[in-house]
Amino acid sequence: MEHLLLSRAAAIAALTAAFGNRVVTSQAVRDQHGNTLTWVPNQPPDAVVFPQTTQDVQQIVGICAQHKMPMIPFGTGTSLEGHINAPFGGVSIDFRDMNRVLAVHAEDLDCVIEPGITRKALNEHLRDQGLFFPIDPGADASLGGMAATRASGTNAVRYGTMKDNVLAMKVVLANGEVMTTSRRAKKSASGYDLTRLIVGSEGTLGIITELTLKLSGIPEAIASGVCPFPSVDAACKATIQTIQSGIPVARIELLDALQIRASNAYSKLTLPEVPTLFVEFHGTEASVAEQSQRFGDIVTELGGGPFDWATKPEDRSRLWQARHDGYWAGRHLRPGASAFATDVCVPISRLAECVNATQREVAELNLVAPILGHVGDGNFHLTLLVDMADADEVKRAKILMERLVELALAMDGTCTGEHGVGQGKMKYLLAEHGAPALAAMAAIKRALDPQNLMNPGKIVAL
Amino acid sequence: MEHLLLSRAAAIAALTAAFGNRVVTSQAVRDQHGNTLTWVPNQPPDAVVFPQTTQDVQQIVGICAQHKMPMIPFGTGTSLEGHINAPFGGVSIDFRDMNRVLAVHAEDLDCVIEPGITRKALNEHLRDQGLFFPIDPGADASLGGMAATRASGTNAVRYGTMKDNVLAMKVVLANGEVMTTSRRAKKSASGYDLTRLIVGSEGTLGIITELTLKLSGIPEAIASGVCPFPSVDAACKATIQTIQSGIPVARIELLDALQIRASNAYSKLTLPEVPTLFVEFHGTEASVAEQSQRFGDIVTELGGGPFDWATKPEDRSRLWQARHDGYWAGRHLRPGASAFATDVCVPISRLAECVNATQREVAELNLVAPILGHVGDGNFHLTLLVDMADADEVKRAKILMERLVELALAMDGTCTGEHGVGQGKMKYLLAEHGAPALAAMAAIKRALDPQNLMNPGKIVAL
Repeated sequence: MEHLLLSRAAAIAALTAAFGNRVVTSQAVRDQHGNTLTWVPNQPPDAVVFPQTTQDVQQIVGICAQHKMPMIPFGTGTSLEGHINAPFGGVSIDFRDMNRVLAVHAEDLDCVIEPGITRKALNEHLRDQGLFFPIDPGADASLGGMAATRASGTNAVRYGTMKDNVLAMKVVLANGEVMTTSRRAKKSASGYDLTRLIVGSEGTLGIITELTLKLSGIPEAIASGVCPFPSVDAACKATIQTIQSGIPVARIELLDALQIRASNAYSKLTLPEVPTLFVEFHGTEASVAEQSQRFGDIVTELGGGPFDWATKPEDRSRLWQARHDGYWAGRHLRPGASAFATDVCVPISRLAECVNATQREVAELNLVAPILGHVGDGNFHLTLLVDMADADEVKRAKILMERLVELALAMDGTCTGEHGVGQGKMKYLLAEHGAPALAAMAAIKRALDPQNLMNPGKIVAL
Repeated sequence: MEHLLLSRAAAIAALTAAFGNRVVTSQAVRDQHGNTLTWVPNQPPDAVVFPQTTQDVQQIVGICAQHKMPMIPFGTGTSLEGHINAPFGGVSIDFRDMNRVLAVHAEDLDCVIEPGITRKALNEHLRDQGLFFPIDPGADASLGGMAATRASGTNAVRYGTMKDNVLAMKVVLANGEVMTTSRRAKKSASGYDLTRLIVGSEGTLGIITELTLKLSGIPEAIASGVCPFPSVDAACKATIQTIQSGIPVARIELLDALQIRASNAYSKLTLPEVPTLFVEFHGTEASVAEQSQRFGDIVTELGGGPFDWATKPEDRSRLWQARHDGYWAGRHLRPGASAFATDVCVPISRLAECVNATQREVAELNLVAPILGHVGDGNFHLTLLVDMADADEVKRAKILMERLVELALAMDGTCTGEHGVGQGKMKYLLAEHGAPALAAMAAIKRALDPQNLMNPGKIVAL
């Protein structure tokens, strides 16, 4: 143990010799680089380093490998399952200073960026060219972090997740070499899909230092609206029928009655407190009109409505900002409580059943947990609000989390649609994937990171 | 060497004891299970076995592992780069008898199938439910083979490739265990993306015994047409502008003048012998009309046209059958010649430049090679027709292949957009991916197949 501590001190000394004041060891900065957003305990790293180039990252990896120092890549720290914690100590590699747009290839609908740029900053940069990057998790996360966690968001039903929108990456491997995962061509059948292997690997297989992203054209026309439903069932049925009938809906989001109450208060909306879909259609003027009308027919048949259309861009922005602030709105329902945001995803045919069963469990366990979801993908979130001083409530909350995952897995779903595994969901992977798949993941991890220094203690335990 | 042969004989004896007349060692059947379609030499396996269940495959893998016998999964044998050859001997595992549809989940737009079913048979099965599986390589390939080679085809520009349309698989690993790569939920952030790792791995990491595929609804309206252009440049520009302007074209295929001549003769068409786009639009009646009109505007501006619309379903079928028969049409341009079909893929902005440069190389080298391509993805094919008795021509043909790949790689493209690596393109992977990526692929291969028995001699050399 003492040997390990000495080794860490030596690693920090070597990093400081190389990077000077870009290595920070103050308690405050270290604490900010562990988990801060959920009830997963904060486990700060021993130091934080701010690289400026891929070569810097290679040098950091070299020093850390020599001293057997864990390395934890850090974007904006908005992950929810303890992804950025340092359970075995180590260095947090903060990409704050690597946030440039390196190239925009408008003709090819792609761009090359550094991992530290956030999704909003990227979209600011792209707007003048009529382009945007559609993946939008609630937080203004960094693109490197979004790739590492296979993020998605409200647009995923139409535009896919990070797995569909990362074309290529530069990745510094545990041996210090820089791997290019793919070329810039739109498709390839040339060897193993290293891009998709790195997307979602949460920093456990290598450190992303550059990304080539697929872009989309800003639609000519956009229509957003809000539509109340008599029940969660009716809202889910409307969603299923929309997807089945091939309406290319761009966003279709469920907020349950409690979430609407929370969002009304936090985002100053005045919506009826019933299950509600937020929807958006993208296309030409004619196509958006046709999509809206077809969706309206489905809604009417299921007893939903009336629609409230946000026609002005500022109304639309306010609507989606409220949706993105759903987590914060949920937290404000119960000031002082800790929030545990979680997500599962099931085949869409089971969605209503899963949401209803979840609401029943929440009620039975006497808990407070608004629900919102990217229901076009069968994906929904709970923001579980827990008084951590109440031991019994904490116990009940933990039971709910287990039951939610059990429910999802029993319906052929996954323990996380988009938040990722981190530390919080490792315990569910065996039940979800089975021993052979988990052993395959561990074998891949050992093959690419034999010293287990790349974000150890996440996804697979070695 | 003698030891190896004895070991192979023992493996075949053990397989025969287990599977009786489902193990075949006749020369004719063995020859059919090596490469037969291109100039890659035929390297037949020692035996062919026909499993009927996943458990059969597990038993085959167990016997082969015990006797260090290579295993080569076989679908319909339509791969073009020697994927199914047995350079080190071994057993071909033919999935002819595992061709059932196990479930269709219409509400979830997915189905569960065995790997031996072909794409056309699957679509026959799905048609009554208004569903289809969009990926369509030229051949009526098996879905297992299509997943293993990351196949795509004419619809990929709109519907993606196999990587986008396989939700989950059962895979028998080298240790005989059955790995489930994912759940049936539409998206997941739960661990490494084993599905995408297996898609495109060409049988080198495990043997696919079941697939869950994403389905699409048969569009309400379809419009197909043929449009001549004054030059390859103009046709490529029309393609780029179509993609950039967000027209969700379902198919956009280039046939160069020589390919049109070949297809006119083989498929009894009467098209002008100039560069031509075959296009198709999917959607509602209104949306298809709007897409066609917008595309028409682009075409007119670039001096293309007039359009020839195939309005009747039978005309449309004939059109696309002609496109799918492009390879066979090409072969008929020069009876007796061997055909070497190859493909590359480049960022779409470089497409015209790459096709033009390729045509110049073909002319300079005095070769015959019609071009057709899935140009919406920047992907195109050459069918190089070579008189194998003419040593100088064979030499020039090999030079052309090298130059084509060099051209594509210099434009940030890939050595294969959809045919895969097999044996034929292994030599290009280092130039395309670089040493760190290739080493990572080899490390993954060793981790999952330490004895190197899973289709050895393909993708990565160990």
